[in-house]
Amino acid sequence: MTIDAQALAQRAGELLEEARARRPLVQNVTNFVSMDIAANALLALGASPAMIHAPEETDEFTALADALVINVGTLSAPAAIGMERAVAAARMHGKPWLLDPVAAGLLTFRDETIRKLLRHRPAIIRGNASEIMAVARIAGLTDADAAPRGVDNRHQASEAEALAVKLARHCFCAVVATGAVDVVTDGQAVVRLANGSPLAPRVTALGCSMSSVMGAYLALAEPFEAALAATVLYGVAGDIAGESAKGPASFRTAFLDTLHNIGAGDLSARIKVI
Amino acid sequence: MTIDAQALAQRAGELLEEARARRPLVQNVTNFVSMDIAANALLALGASPAMIHAPEETDEFTALADALVINVGTLSAPAAIGMERAVAAARMHGKPWLLDPVAAGLLTFRDETIRKLLRHRPAIIRGNASEIMAVARIAGLTDADAAPRGVDNRHQASEAEALAVKLARHCFCAVVATGAVDVVTDGQAVVRLANGSPLAPRVTALGCSMSSVMGAYLALAEPFEAALAATVLYGVAGDIAGESAKGPASFRTAFLDTLHNIGAGDLSARIKVI
Amino acid sequence: MTIDAQALAQRAGELLEEARARRPLVQNVTNFVSMDIAANALLALGASPAMIHAPEETDEFTALADALVINVGTLSAPAAIGMERAVAAARMHGKPWLLDPVAAGLLTFRDETIRKLLRHRPAIIRGNASEIMAVARIAGLTDADAAPRGVDNRHQASEAEALAVKLARHCFCAVVATGAVDVVTDGQAVVRLANGSPLAPRVTALGCSMSSVMGAYLALAEPFEAALAATVLYGVAGDIAGESAKGPASFRTAFLDTLHNIGAGDLSARIKVI
Repeated sequence: MTIDAQALAQRAGELLEEARARRPLVQNVTNFVSMDIAANALLALGASPAMIHAPEETDEFTALADALVINVGTLSAPAAIGMERAVAAARMHGKPWLLDPVAAGLLTFRDETIRKLLRHRPAIIRGNASEIMAVARIAGLTDADAAPRGVDNRHQASEAEALAVKLARHCFCAVVATGAVDVVTDGQAVVRLANGSPLAPRVTALGCSMSSVMGAYLALAEPFEAALAATVLYGVAGDIAGESAKGPASFRTAFLDTLHNIGAGDLSARIKVI
Repeated sequence: MTIDAQALAQRAGELLEEARARRPLVQNVTNFVSMDIAANALLALGASPAMIHAPEETDEFTALADALVINVGTLSAPAAIGMERAVAAARMHGKPWLLDPVAAGLLTFRDETIRKLLRHRPAIIRGNASEIMAVARIAGLTDADAAPRGVDNRHQASEAEALAVKLARHCFCAVVATGAVDVVTDGQAVVRLANGSPLAPRVTALGCSMSSVMGAYLALAEPFEAALAATVLYGVAGDIAGESAKGPASFRTAFLDTLHNIGAGDLSARIKVI
Repeated sequence: MTIDAQALAQRAGELLEEARARRPLVQNVTNFVSMDIAANALLALGASPAMIHAPEETDEFTALADALVINVGTLSAPAAIGMERAVAAARMHGKPWLLDPVAAGLLTFRDETIRKLLRHRPAIIRGNASEIMAVARIAGLTDADAAPRGVDNRHQASEAEALAVKLARHCFCAVVATGAVDVVTDGQAVVRLANGSPLAPRVTALGCSMSSVMGAYLALAEPFEAALAATVLYGVAGDIAGESAKGPASFRTAFLDTLHNIGAGDLSARIKVI
């Protein structure tokens, strides 16, 4: 399959406009580090965030939400219960959900939680290359030692590509492995995007916030389309923000402002498919 | 009752100076999304924030605090216990407290928690219009379907006005319904304020941080005065920040800087009572 | 002992370069207010943050980390268990750890938790002057009423100096009491540093983030050296950020950018030992 960069940018632009017009309500069962930036990214985009994680509330809310994002960042036992209830409710109500497997591959309780969540069929799995490799291992697709170090990305997305494809086929979902090059696959097509700033990995939870924005798109489009469109948006917004930033904190500010101001034309003009 | 805008601005200016001079200690039992911005808003103002939410600690701290702010944003079962202990301690020690009913009207556990908290007589209830309408329903004042969608405001404050007045009379407290126009009432007088920026609702937890600042004023003045003064402050600071912002994130930065730099003269020059 | 400011700045510069080159993995069992700024400070510096606090995960992660930072800010019963397991694992695996005793001296459960943690031999204790005085009292070194008010610093570091020295000797660790003047001691030498901006205490959790950066240095150097180097870094970065800031929020942005851009030459040029 040949990927037409301009067709991709155009579709990403359409979804951007649609997200602003329809303001999908995205439930985030997410970590404490990312709550602020994830909610602000969704608001900057024009979507509607809700951060609801307690077991007493998650499933009831999932019935109201347009999409669900599960992020295991600062996992705890109650949050794991809240996550399981939310994904079960998502499946029951036909709401699409995304899994962000932060720091997968390092800790027993976390990997066991991810294993349970995978049974509930995420529409998208998005992580850095190390995390995607670890999830493939958790899913039994490799016995390679794919453990990331902390929550940092120690692998290039190219190393994760073959496992990402395997994982997408195994889970019938889209998989996104982010890094200097982002790899997006539905198990058949593989798209490589090379936008973004070297300052992006210096901002905590920026990837988590990308998962939340991808969740907003998931309320509006098929998983592979949503994954591609959000990856294009984040890459190009990173390019733009990087041009005026003086360091990671001013990059963060410029990035969120850019999510608010960016237009379809920016995506077409700057997209880099490789 | 006629509201004299300049008299209101002058009183708001006096409370601003008094907060800076006396630095009230405000205990916040608040959600995880708002902790950072609420603490930073109180510090920028010159007040002293403490974020204490565990059941093991809340009531012991309330005895030391000058005022208490309860925000049910990312509610959990332990936090609900912590809140109930804190408001009971507030009543016992004569400390005023404010209720911010985030996402009221949507979830069973949350509405039940709000119902229990209301019994302990908040001095102020502050939420967006949808939330205030939902609290009025929880208090049995209407059977209208007043459920907000997520944590966003889907109603204008003008729609909430009659219920806000009813709620204030029912609870013997001040009620603030925020939106493009902010409505403040003690059950008798109703003041409508039209300051603020369209970027403000694009910043997560800015309303929560307003509740915390209102809590600081509550340590210094009667509830209706505190509610008015904090609403004027937030509206005018929003006006000023909006003039230099390039998007929601630079607005947030400018807003917090403005809380630090604003003076009584700014309030008088810019207040818009309608 | 005479402190040579230039030798101190030079060593601080070496550790800065080493942290960027070796990217130590710092586990933070920290409060919800500081998670964002602590992770961003470590990333801006070039180190690798992990925020892992649940009892199910802390000790397993400590075995992988290069250093551990315990911050009792928004303490809860599960977090206290997570902390105790983490420090026990740190001792077992020979990983150095730092204690940030936020709001020590005010609350029974918190002081009891600090008392238990102290038994596991922190390498560094860092707090504001009031907190250090309170920890000295918890450790049985004084019966003075050393309670801070909220999480603000109500004492000058000079008042805490004698107790800081006592505490360092008692715990065989380095102690840092921060304030307008920062005091750093290993129980023998006492170094007083006078860098920093008056805006710094207006930014929530900036001190907590300093503890996390100190944790990164603790992975690379002896406790007293690490404590001195991080204190110099934070003071000089505060000086630089204060020159362009318009208020507390733009100070925060400038400060994090400065952590990313600062060089050894800045430390030598600006260090103020008094």
